[in-house]
Amino acid sequence: MLDKVERIVLLNDFYGPLLTAKQRDVMHLYYENDWSLAEIAQSMDISRQAVYDLLHRASGALEDYETRLGLMGKFLTSRVRWQEIYDLLENGIDHERVQRVLELIKELNESL
Amino acid sequence: MLDKVERIVLLNDFYGPLLTAKQRDVMHLYYENDWSLAEIAQSMDISRQAVYDLLHRASGALEDYETRLGLMGKFLTSRVRWQEIYDLLENGIDHERVQRVLELIKELNESL
Repeated sequence: MLDKVERIVLLNDFYGPLLTAKQRDVMHLYYENDWSLAEIAQSMDISRQAVYDLLHRASGALEDYETRLGLMGKFLTSRVRWQEIYDLLENGIDHERVQRVLELIKELNESL
Repeated sequence: MLDKVERIVLLNDFYGPLLTAKQRDVMHLYYENDWSLAEIAQSMDISRQAVYDLLHRASGALEDYETRLGLMGKFLTSRVRWQEIYDLLENGIDHERVQRVLELIKELNESL
């Protein structure tokens, strides 16, 4: 399971380009550069509350995009299948393994 | 290569949920049900020009989402790799093929 911060960071990887420039800047400074609200406020010459609101609205927008498009959910599901394919092929090959890999590939293709 | 209509239909598969309800309705009737502008206008009780504008703005929005997120481009690229993996595994297995499949899986994983 992802914790709350990991979830926002991953959602931002998927949907960050859909945020406004200001939201993107604040998300970047807060989650990637680990700045405090006060530091961001000072740097952008806005109030601490404005920074908080930007972060809050950005997170809400990211969750809304996920509700509509579900890219992160698909990614997390497909990652499990990827790993299974990789493990199957790395640990020796036989007819049965290849059949299972082909099945997994079909499933992945259909879930795209 | 996709023609113009195929491109819009595919973009709509990816980003349709981000359009407004009205844009989605018009896109659906025009591209999937193959209604004319006049038929849509009558059914929705709006002008033919309004239908045209909705379609035009919806297409623009879809192209804008693709510019930002590039999901369709990634999908088309990954589809080529998927097919290669599938062909490699279906036509017999040996060490060399499996190595190539593992490489392709790594590439696919990195491009997600």
